[in-house]
Amino acid sequence: MSGNTFGTIFRVTTWGESHGAAVGVVIDGCPPGLPLGEAEVQKELDRRRPGQSDISTPRKEEDRVAILSGIFEGRTTGTPISMIVRNRDVDSLPYEKLRHTPRPGHADYPYDAKYGIRDHRGGGRASARETIGRVAAGAIARKVLAEHGIDVLAHVIALGGVRARESEITPALIKENIEKTPVRCADLNAAEQMIELIRSVREQGDSLGGIVEIVATGATAGIGEPVFDKLDADLAKALMGIGAVKGVEIGVGFRCAGMKGSEMNDAFEISPNGEEVVVSETNNAGGILGGLSTGAPIVCRIAVKPTPSISLPQKTVDLRTMQETEITIKGRHDPAIPPRIVPVAEAMVAIVLADHLLRNTALKPHTKTL
Amino acid sequence: MSGNTFGTIFRVTTWGESHGAAVGVVIDGCPPGLPLGEAEVQKELDRRRPGQSDISTPRKEEDRVAILSGIFEGRTTGTPISMIVRNRDVDSLPYEKLRHTPRPGHADYPYDAKYGIRDHRGGGRASARETIGRVAAGAIARKVLAEHGIDVLAHVIALGGVRARESEITPALIKENIEKTPVRCADLNAAEQMIELIRSVREQGDSLGGIVEIVATGATAGIGEPVFDKLDADLAKALMGIGAVKGVEIGVGFRCAGMKGSEMNDAFEISPNGEEVVVSETNNAGGILGGLSTGAPIVCRIAVKPTPSISLPQKTVDLRTMQETEITIKGRHDPAIPPRIVPVAEAMVAIVLADHLLRNTALKPHTKTL
Amino acid sequence: MSGNTFGTIFRVTTWGESHGAAVGVVIDGCPPGLPLGEAEVQKELDRRRPGQSDISTPRKEEDRVAILSGIFEGRTTGTPISMIVRNRDVDSLPYEKLRHTPRPGHADYPYDAKYGIRDHRGGGRASARETIGRVAAGAIARKVLAEHGIDVLAHVIALGGVRARESEITPALIKENIEKTPVRCADLNAAEQMIELIRSVREQGDSLGGIVEIVATGATAGIGEPVFDKLDADLAKALMGIGAVKGVEIGVGFRCAGMKGSEMNDAFEISPNGEEVVVSETNNAGGILGGLSTGAPIVCRIAVKPTPSISLPQKTVDLRTMQETEITIKGRHDPAIPPRIVPVAEAMVAIVLADHLLRNTALKPHTKTL
Amino acid sequence: MSGNTFGTIFRVTTWGESHGAAVGVVIDGCPPGLPLGEAEVQKELDRRRPGQSDISTPRKEEDRVAILSGIFEGRTTGTPISMIVRNRDVDSLPYEKLRHTPRPGHADYPYDAKYGIRDHRGGGRASARETIGRVAAGAIARKVLAEHGIDVLAHVIALGGVRARESEITPALIKENIEKTPVRCADLNAAEQMIELIRSVREQGDSLGGIVEIVATGATAGIGEPVFDKLDADLAKALMGIGAVKGVEIGVGFRCAGMKGSEMNDAFEISPNGEEVVVSETNNAGGILGGLSTGAPIVCRIAVKPTPSISLPQKTVDLRTMQETEITIKGRHDPAIPPRIVPVAEAMVAIVLADHLLRNTALKPHTKTL
Repeated sequence: MSGNTFGTIFRVTTWGESHGAAVGVVIDGCPPGLPLGEAEVQKELDRRRPGQSDISTPRKEEDRVAILSGIFEGRTTGTPISMIVRNRDVDSLPYEKLRHTPRPGHADYPYDAKYGIRDHRGGGRASARETIGRVAAGAIARKVLAEHGIDVLAHVIALGGVRARESEITPALIKENIEKTPVRCADLNAAEQMIELIRSVREQGDSLGGIVEIVATGATAGIGEPVFDKLDADLAKALMGIGAVKGVEIGVGFRCAGMKGSEMNDAFEISPNGEEVVVSETNNAGGILGGLSTGAPIVCRIAVKPTPSISLPQKTVDLRTMQETEITIKGRHDPAIPPRIVPVAEAMVAIVLADHLLRNTALKPHTKTL
Repeated sequence: MSGNTFGTIFRVTTWGESHGAAVGVVIDGCPPGLPLGEAEVQKELDRRRPGQSDISTPRKEEDRVAILSGIFEGRTTGTPISMIVRNRDVDSLPYEKLRHTPRPGHADYPYDAKYGIRDHRGGGRASARETIGRVAAGAIARKVLAEHGIDVLAHVIALGGVRARESEITPALIKENIEKTPVRCADLNAAEQMIELIRSVREQGDSLGGIVEIVATGATAGIGEPVFDKLDADLAKALMGIGAVKGVEIGVGFRCAGMKGSEMNDAFEISPNGEEVVVSETNNAGGILGGLSTGAPIVCRIAVKPTPSISLPQKTVDLRTMQETEITIKGRHDPAIPPRIVPVAEAMVAIVLADHLLRNTALKPHTKTL
Repeated sequence: MSGNTFGTIFRVTTWGESHGAAVGVVIDGCPPGLPLGEAEVQKELDRRRPGQSDISTPRKEEDRVAILSGIFEGRTTGTPISMIVRNRDVDSLPYEKLRHTPRPGHADYPYDAKYGIRDHRGGGRASARETIGRVAAGAIARKVLAEHGIDVLAHVIALGGVRARESEITPALIKENIEKTPVRCADLNAAEQMIELIRSVREQGDSLGGIVEIVATGATAGIGEPVFDKLDADLAKALMGIGAVKGVEIGVGFRCAGMKGSEMNDAFEISPNGEEVVVSETNNAGGILGGLSTGAPIVCRIAVKPTPSISLPQKTVDLRTMQETEITIKGRHDPAIPPRIVPVAEAMVAIVLADHLLRNTALKPHTKTL
Repeated sequence: MSGNTFGTIFRVTTWGESHGAAVGVVIDGCPPGLPLGEAEVQKELDRRRPGQSDISTPRKEEDRVAILSGIFEGRTTGTPISMIVRNRDVDSLPYEKLRHTPRPGHADYPYDAKYGIRDHRGGGRASARETIGRVAAGAIARKVLAEHGIDVLAHVIALGGVRARESEITPALIKENIEKTPVRCADLNAAEQMIELIRSVREQGDSLGGIVEIVATGATAGIGEPVFDKLDADLAKALMGIGAVKGVEIGVGFRCAGMKGSEMNDAFEISPNGEEVVVSETNNAGGILGGLSTGAPIVCRIAVKPTPSISLPQKTVDLRTMQETEITIKGRHDPAIPPRIVPVAEAMVAIVLADHLLRNTALKPHTKTL
């Protein structure tokens, strides 16, 4: 109800503020008997961690996870899995002078309006550190998915004006290249240009936006729910709920507005590789029809806005005096969020898919009447 | 859990199949004491109704709503409001030959995969008739919003290749022009071109996609929840959950990918009209920061795919024989969905806002500490 | 959120007022492929129906159910099942003079306090007619349970001062005798006395309370959830949520307060009938340990208060004038509710079990590590 | 969905196993601006803590709580409150030989059946240590209630065969006497007898059950929801969901079965103390009618079974060999649970009331039409 829980069967609740004692997550509804250790969660957190390269925030957090419950002798028990990461490299001083002057592009002002009280240090609850819980939960969701042969990959396809050559990017190429550069773009030429652009914009005290694509492979047909909890609806919610995301597309997305039905529809055929299974040569639908998976790869794209924390002067209002004023933001920030959103977006898609997989399990058909 | 309910406090549950006895909706969580009659609901249903013009489906449904509960002497009582619309002009014959051959672009194939049984007549549960319940619920949500001075408007901004001159469109203009043409585009010149295009494409047996924009005015700052149930996340879910929608944007949406922070951030200032209130001259954020409303108009855009039902021949598979085959679809269909999605999109946005308004009411701050 | 929905996967939403147009129910989350027809639902409604004997309310309602959705060619489709029963024999006149004088023992006064508006006719939403939806949903839950060999039976074990000889009552005897008398007591001698008592108390214009026992047989071990959603916790909620119920017991219930651990604990043994299965000779726990089923019959008992509508004069307050006054209630009422609560209690237990059965299905263990 | 979360607006999620690293709780939906410190939570935990007297378990746990989030400068912020208590005095050795031989009266056997894997040490998730999270959450719920003048008190009214003289017990007396003896009985004579009885039964290696009463004062009329989420239904769920509880009563409870309507109904009158408010001289209903509070004290009673862990030999089955065997339980256990359940029962009632209070806030009437 208050927005900190996601999912219906595989339920993820995150808690914690950027400069509080810790951040964490509780997962309720993970199937029992799944092999799980801290190392698997840590691996994903390490991908999310700040300070991984010179083009990311200099905040140094080891982000060491501890699993406090729900695991027994290396396996999940079906009881809640509680995970915690301590906040260590906290420097609240730069935020003190921003306490009453909301930063443009940030949650400060509406948080004040909603709650009347706000932990302003490091963005408080609205900090990107909250996503630690998501990534930790995603690591476990991935394990649920792996048992069903489903994998989730994300990569940066646009950053500032630079765009990857999308037509040449395959899941295999993403896997190969994704961690080769700090921008997480599978097209290595584009990656190089993106890095240069980030460096130049950072020097100007400014920031860049971009586009991230997420691909889930291996899902069979029929995963999802109809009407309101469509698979694409839940993916849209999960992805739009990541800070800085301003748009979500499935398949061809906004391009469909200019297409005709005869171009858009993915014709059905029998799999050319000999299996007696229904497939489509094209995948304009992005693997989802009527809110349910079709068996084709599930393809989403998200628009990520430029980091709102910039060191250029910005106009704002002092909420005590209600006078206009100007601020410059000197904290430690990523000049471009898309590369760091990659593991978060993967996590959210994994959580949605794991949840829907379990929802499908709950209501298996009693009969196949065809 | 099974996807047919939306909302947390203002909860909407729809039911019914296209060619079943009726479709309907139950709303639980509507505040008591609200003046409400069938006429107000009927007005919105009339906007959604098929057969309103020569460019829409010829299915003739009066779509007369009956409110069966939750109203006493012209006011809501706080108990569930059940509304029902009978299906009358049902013609299931054309669907019989499509029973085992899933239509490309439709939910048929994944429904079969998920449920093992499916009411194939008129698309069954996946039919656009399901949105009757949404629009009826939206009519009531609008009444909740009206008490707080919030209004929701949608209009078509692109159809096929034709695009409205967006820069000239104001909420007032939308209100004035929206029902003047059957395409519901506030730019009347563009509207004319859209209508011509629809006619020509329909003659080819094909269909068109488009873009619809939804604007909510009057919301004060601070409506929404943080983290997962962000206002934009719930809007994305609500809108992506409408059939045929393949993309959702908030504010500048995907354009943010090419912007710099200094361009994207909406600077805060004191309202130039004399009120001591924080506002922004620009509204790139689309009225939402950190998942909460800022007080600026809330602006969403959705990409609507071309109607998948086209009369051109399409490849598919007969699921009994698992042989490839070809179908042509002769039912009664809209060649372009965007104009008819307008009242549905308005309804979904109204439902999200009413729900979040009530969520905010539940957790009013105990103190204003600033 | 607003109290009209029950269940997590098998979700039941009821709507409707006693003297409104109709009452009804929507079930979302029923597994697809289940054979189902109106006759099976009608059979349970007929057991609930008023006017079945001379010791029940003379209101004459045929209570004919119509299933409006979710069924296709005699099977459930996995989509919402909407059922409706029209209100026909409505006589609101006697209620007019009770509009502002809350009836003692009824919901009138707190409804006014909560909602500020109330359909006073026939008790409005708080009428026992609301249970039509529960019984209709229960009929479907029973079908889900039947597929797993689970059956639910209820019977009256005490009415006024008369108590059935419980030690002699077996599930088989309940099945045989339950519908033989209008009091639904399996001990036919006790039943006779109960009937006489009801007649005499009714003549005095007064009413009687009683105790109903519900037994569910056939559930295997391990159904339920830990901690908050324990099977007994959900049963307690489901049963206490029936109007007029003031107490719920599982197994020996309140008798446990005077027992020692060595008496209370049900020792485990291998089934004496040759199967290699863990059983207990005694069943003090009522088939539930730690919130999960043990494999023994699940046994609940509920205390049902005497009908609050009595024709003797009662003190109350006129809420317009805030003056004390006196009322006598002349409506059509059952002098004893327990017999009519039998099908409702069965329905609620069936709904809880069906829901927990599906919850268990959703999270099947990945491995058996023992 | 998986049973570890309670509440709709004020949502409580507990996690942790008895012999794991820690136990904890996350509360989402606490109103912002509420003054709160660890001391207030610690005070309630100290009442729950083991080892408080010679008639309770000798397990020595300091149970020191840390609040990790959701508080800023001494006030709640409206974001999730995460609290953690480390497990320190863990002795898992005695449990090793019980790993495959389920203890009668405990959750062991059905947990194995449900999950296929189980942390058997100290009862794992089914341990009474799980209630730490409930009591911590209850301490915060109490603060929400205090702002509305609501207080919650519990006390032991029966233990073994000893029964307190209930007619003489007032809320003031409970407050005065409750912590004077380790059995938490307000009737000090009865308390003395209870203590003696506990000592003698413990020497026999056996245990005792009892009855706890919970009284909530100060609630105005109209709190609760109709139909399924009745206030008494949610109280029944909350209380039956506490380990060892086998029965729940509201008001006169099971005594109503032998009463007539004319005896049971609480007549309404104008408050004799001069306020123009509707009250009742009697309170047979226990402060709840139609699932909503009446303004009278809310009175619940629970039956608590004797501690299942006894040191007398008990029959059970070895689940590896499926052979019958015998166990004696040598852990550290309370010979009687009722005194220690007192703070847990108070916490659960406080959580239910706080949640329903906020639910009422969300849907305030738009008008008072009377």
